[in-house]
Formats: sequence, C-alpha cells, structure tokens
Amino acid sequence: MDKQLRLGLAGLGTVGSSVARLIERNRVELAGKCQRGIEITAVSARDPNKARGADLGSAMWFDDAAEMARSAEIDVLIELIGGADGIAYEAVTAALTSGKHVITANKALIAAHGVELARLAETRGVSLNFEAAVAGGIPVVKTLREALAGNRVSHVYGILNGTCNYILTRMEREHLSFEACLKRAQELGYAEADPTFDIEGHDTAHKLAILTSLAFGTEISDEDIYMEGISSITTADIEAADDLGYRIKLLGVAQRTESGIEQRVHPAMVPKASAIAQIDGVTNAVAIDGDFVGEIVLAGAGAGGDATASAVVGDIADIARSIRVPALGRPADLLTPYVRARMRAHEGGYYIRLMVQDRPGAFAAIATRMSEKGISLQSIVQKDLAEPTRARDENALKPVILITYDTMEAGVREALELIEADNVIVGPPQLIRIEKLY
Amino acid sequence: MDKQLRLGLAGLGTVGSSVARLIERNRVELAGKCQRGIEITAVSARDPNKARGADLGSAMWFDDAAEMARSAEIDVLIELIGGADGIAYEAVTAALTSGKHVITANKALIAAHGVELARLAETRGVSLNFEAAVAGGIPVVKTLREALAGNRVSHVYGILNGTCNYILTRMEREHLSFEACLKRAQELGYAEADPTFDIEGHDTAHKLAILTSLAFGTEISDEDIYMEGISSITTADIEAADDLGYRIKLLGVAQRTESGIEQRVHPAMVPKASAIAQIDGVTNAVAIDGDFVGEIVLAGAGAGGDATASAVVGDIADIARSIRVPALGRPADLLTPYVRARMRAHEGGYYIRLMVQDRPGAFAAIATRMSEKGISLQSIVQKDLAEPTRARDENALKPVILITYDTMEAGVREALELIEADNVIVGPPQLIRIEKLY
Repeated sequence: MDKQLRLGLAGLGTVGSSVARLIERNRVELAGKCQRGIEITAVSARDPNKARGADLGSAMWFDDAAEMARSAEIDVLIELIGGADGIAYEAVTAALTSGKHVITANKALIAAHGVELARLAETRGVSLNFEAAVAGGIPVVKTLREALAGNRVSHVYGILNGTCNYILTRMEREHLSFEACLKRAQELGYAEADPTFDIEGHDTAHKLAILTSLAFGTEISDEDIYMEGISSITTADIEAADDLGYRIKLLGVAQRTESGIEQRVHPAMVPKASAIAQIDGVTNAVAIDGDFVGEIVLAGAGAGGDATASAVVGDIADIARSIRVPALGRPADLLTPYVRARMRAHEGGYYIRLMVQDRPGAFAAIATRMSEKGISLQSIVQKDLAEPTRARDENALKPVILITYDTMEAGVREALELIEADNVIVGPPQLIRIEKLY
Repeated sequence: MDKQLRLGLAGLGTVGSSVARLIERNRVELAGKCQRGIEITAVSARDPNKARGADLGSAMWFDDAAEMARSAEIDVLIELIGGADGIAYEAVTAALTSGKHVITANKALIAAHGVELARLAETRGVSLNFEAAVAGGIPVVKTLREALAGNRVSHVYGILNGTCNYILTRMEREHLSFEACLKRAQELGYAEADPTFDIEGHDTAHKLAILTSLAFGTEISDEDIYMEGISSITTADIEAADDLGYRIKLLGVAQRTESGIEQRVHPAMVPKASAIAQIDGVTNAVAIDGDFVGEIVLAGAGAGGDATASAVVGDIADIARSIRVPALGRPADLLTPYVRARMRAHEGGYYIRLMVQDRPGAFAAIATRMSEKGISLQSIVQKDLAEPTRARDENALKPVILITYDTMEAGVREALELIEADNVIVGPPQLIRIEKLY
C-alpha cells in the first residue's frame, strides 16, 4: 500500500461536512478500493466549533486556507469555499504552486480561471479535479474527460440548475405562479434569498462554460454566453406548452456550428416524451452527443451536500490511485480559443406569445409581419380570456400563441420588432425556443 | 510525449471495424488528449481481405490471436472475438501473462472468468478494461469503478438488452404480438437467428453479473441469477400495464439485502412517469443508487459498432494516459464471495394474469387462495372477451388481472400453485413484478 493520502479541507459548510462524514463512514471500503489510507489531516473553516457530524478532532486547524494550502501537512487541497476570486483563488493557486493536488466544487472559480489553473497544475505535475463543480453527483466531467475521449462532440446540453427546474416543475404540476413557486423554493432552501444568480441563468452559464471547454477543447468563456432566465415564464406559457405536447425547461446548450461554438442558456420547450422532459424537481441531467457514442444522457442529484460529496470523493479516489488527466481533458496549450457563434444565426422552431388588443385588423397585422419576414407558422392558437357571450371590447387583451416552423432567429426578432412598432400588442412578446436537439 | 501506444486488434467484425475507423478519423484529437500517438500495429481476423472502412495496410497480420497477444509488436490487446472460452480466453490470458494490457468487449468472458483475469492483470501490473462489455457506449464501468468510489451502493438495475427493449417497445406502440416483433427485430439485425440468448435474459444476466461485482465488491457469479425472459409477455399484459399506468421492461436488478445480494433478470412493470420507462427501442439505461450520490441514471446506445467502439477507445485512452485501476474496482483479494439472497424472499407488488373458466365459484376460489396466503389485492380487473350480450359459457375463458399490494414472493407462488391445483384456471399464470426501486 502507498502511504496515506492527506487531505486539507477548506470550507466546512454543507458539502464540506458531507465530505468529512463520507470519508469517516466509508473509510475502510475506500482505502481498499484505492489501496491507500485517506485522511483529513487539516481543516480551515470560519467557525471551528460548528458541529459537523464527523470527528475532525485530530485534524490540524488553520485560520488561513492559503496557509493550509502551502503547509507540509497535506497532499491535496479540497476547496469548498466558493467564489471566483478572493480566498478560494488564493488558496487554490497556493496549493498548485506548492505542488499539491487540488479538488474544488467551485464552478465560479473554474469558469473564471480554469485555463490558467489547469496550466499551473500541469506545470507542477499535479491534478486539478472539479467533478463537483458541474451537476453535483453526476460524473459528467469524468465522462467527457475520459470515457468519451475518442469522440468528437457535436453538442452538449442539460438541466444544470435545480432551483429553476424545481420552480418550473411546481408551476406545471400545481398551476402556481412563478412568484409563488420561487417563494416556496426559498422556504425549502432550494433558492437563495437573492435568487437572481440561479433564476436568471448565471449559475447554468458557469456550468455550461466548463462543459463547453471539456466537450469541444476550447478555452473557457463564461462571458460570451447568450442568457435568458425563467422569471418571465408565466402559467399561460406552461399551459400552452402542455397543450402543444411540450414541457418548459431551463437548458444550457453548447453546440458546434460552422461559425464557432454556440453557448446559450434559456427556457426551452422540450417534447414531453423526451428523456430530458422527465427530469423533475431539483434533479439535473446532461446529454452529450458524440460522433461515435451517439447521444448519452446522465441524470441525478445536481446539488445537495451528500451528492456533491460523492463527486469530491470520486476526485479524491482518482488522486489516491494516481490517475492524472489534464484538468480540461487535454493539455492547456492544445485548447483552442473560444469562437462564439452568432446567436442570431440560431435556427429552430419558436413559440411566441403575444398579448393582442382585440380590435379589427390586429391579427392580420401580425400575420403580415411574420409573412414579410418569411416565417411560416405551424400553428396559431388564440384563447379568449373573456366570457364567450360578451361583446367585443377593444380594450380587452387576448393571448395569441404562434408556433413557427424551423426558421432563423434573426427573422423572428425582426418580425417581433415590427409588430411592437405596429402597436397591436401590449407588453413585450414572449419568445421561447423549441428545442430539437433530441 | 510518451512513446506511441501500439494496439493489437483481435476480431474485425462490426465493433472492430468501428474501432479502426474511430482511431483513423479522430487520431489527432486523441493523440492530443492522451499526449501520445495511438496506432493499430497488429490485427488478427478470420478474413484479412474484408473491407472495413479503415486503412489497416500497415498493420501486421496474425492468423492466431494468441500469437499476436504474445508478440513484441503490441502493448495492448483489444479482444473483440467473443465467447467465454476458446480463442478469446486464450488470447486474453496470453496477453496478460506476457505483461500486455487487455481491453475487451466480451461480457461472456468477463462474466465467466473476470475474477481470475483481474487477478492475473494485477499480478502483471497491467490493465484489464471492459467498458464495452456492459451497456455499450454508456460509461457505467468507469462510473462504478471510479466516479462512485466513495459510495456504498444499495442497488443497481437497468435495461441492458436492446433486443428485448426493442421488442417490448414495438409491442406496446403497435399492438403487435411478441412473435411479430421478434421477426421484425431479426429482419433489422437487432436479434440473432437464434434469439434465445437475448430474449430469455442470458445476455442481461451476463452484464448484470459484472455490474454486481463492480457495485458490491463481490466475486462475479453469473450462474446464481434468477432469470425470466420476455417470450411469455403477451399484448394482453402490455395493454393491462398501460391501463394501470405502467410499462413492461426487461430489467436486470442487483440489490443488497440482509441475506446477501439479490440478482434477478425478469420483465417488470415500471411506472410510466419513471425515467426508466422512457427508455425506448434499442437504448440501454442503468440506474445506480449510492448512499451519498443518491440515484443516478445513465442512458445511451447499448450496442452497435460505433457506440461500442467509443467505449473501447475510452479504455484505450485510459491506458495511454497510464490510468490504472483494479479491473473490478478493488484488488481481487478484497472481493468478497457472492452470497445469493433467496429470491423467494423478494418483496414487492405483483401483477398476476390468469385465464379463468367462466363458471360459478371460479373467482371465489381464486380470491380465497390469495386471502389464505395473506395477500392483499390492490385491484382486480376482469375483462370479458365475449360479446356482452352472450349467455354464460362455461367453456369460455376470461382473463383476470390481479394487482397485489407489497407482499412476499413466496406467498404469491404458493397461492398460484394452489389455484392451479384447484383447476379453475387454464394455462400457467402470468406473474410480473411491479418494480418500486425508483
């Protein structure tokens, strides 16, 4: 047996506590599998007295995570502090620079500094593992980095944010508003007090940026992502989707196109019978399409202390077994610059919901604009909100739902701008892409 | 860069040809990811002149795969011959004995000799990789062996045979008989001329035996598996399942119980809304439940040359990157003997279809026997096959469908034996387990 692997745990929140518990509970099995003892020998956390369900009494305590990262007490830094910069960045670079392996669950850090850190790890001959940074317990990093190494990936997409999926699932099942479901998610601890980061798609974008690099061998670009959140989704949209045979999911999608890589985060209509439509609540799922493997889908818990700890310990086992793979699947020098595909070149079907004033010619005006831009409509649904017997009221608003055939997004956006200028609709049009990836 | 990795390819059927094509097409990317050239330097196949869509002109040809396995021309033997014994076994042991890594897609070989071969590989310090042997392109071996190393697994189950799933999917969608769907599967090349191995569950059992060992750290036992195939499933069962909110799938299930590991292969009713119910056609899926990760599901192409080649090349990349993990996830000496849980101790809900003679007291006799054995019925459906206006015909047969609450299988089997002895039913009872694992 090799000598014991000594871990320094930076951060003892939910995930850190679960990691400590896992290592304590499954210690013997883990040592057998790795042929090596694994021990938490050092810890750095804000409150050393917090109860954590695991005995860390014999670990050395550090007030400063970066000091721990440099100390001779550890072989591996496990960074569970969070944040793209500050102490997390400082501790990780300190560890790598002093020749220690790093495991992190920090998606913001990898999205912002992944390439630089990967290069640093390479230079020092150590591992930088971050399975827990994307989709919690689902082994998508390992799958892209190792199992699918033979494939040229054409697209990767998924449900990467449990908060949004929980809200959308509840809206659909219980016919509740976005606001009511968000409130419930906050009560259950699935959403932060300030939910912007989750519901506007930033969290999904960070994870997508990492997947994109692993899938396509490009540098990480987390700023060049088209992003729409779910806060504009209404029960009317959810119900219309249901009528049309779709569910609405917040997807992160990265696709290889002729003009570069398209990265986008937005609500999408997915066919009810598709595997991705069955992913409910806080579950995550990632689909990967490779030229030889075809499409594979991985689903499971995308967050939560225990599931994330499972990913962290998988990374620990790899280090204990001396598995060394470049952090981003290939040496940093071989990563190609990220070239963004222009989003307006996106082609697909669209769901459009307009609130139309009920007056003569309104509908004709809309249809004319769509036709001018060469957009063919697959279906048109006009639902009357008023009682059927009421006389026409020119101030009444009617939701009109249009489904287009595959078309270019630029044309759709131009048509909608013209329709808005025509003053026949009230409020902004709702535009949801119909995803045809599966 | 390390020196080139030299591969010896034994077997040039569908999978072998795809492996050769993949390596040719994605050569540059693969070498970048592995920091090492990868080349097929030797080939052994029955017909050296067969066209295979890849240029193998510079590879050395061997008539004897075992001779190639021992030759100085290769670092890795890729065994794609098939069969538990004979030339495949001979070539693999020859390669391992002479210190060469082995990759195989041969589930029969691993199911029969996996522990012995794992031990041999360990002794010689080489890898034995077999991702392609279970569920084709889905990286389930790597996931169990590496990503989930921190978890104690409680169960693993899946749809592991594309032929059966194709037949069941078609029976459901098109209301066709088992025989008609099997014939179509044979025409499409999804089923062999002698389909027994697939449809009676043997293929699933081989894969399950391998998963069981990886999941629970036990020795492989492919003979101690309860097995039922799909040939007794009728359209009546498929339709009854549909009415009750289920689909019928052939599952392989391995479960940790107090008395040991339960391994079983049989058709099961799974709730329509479950992820596993969405797996249609030749797709495979595997669900794994670990104490920390919770349940994760992996789905994708379970067979076919290209998907299988993806798995083989993932294994090649691991070897090229010097990733060494014990073949069965832990050293062979740490594997525990497989202790079979008694199948009759299985507990769950059951679907029972009986063909009942339409005479007074028949139904009461059945209900009495169920009650005697303490079996509670959740629902009873009796469908009249005859015209509603027809008079009672004591020779007419009526299908009666019983759904039990959770109960012990032993009691159900005893009740059915008594009912058969009572002479109130015709033909054997149909018994399908209702799977509650998800």
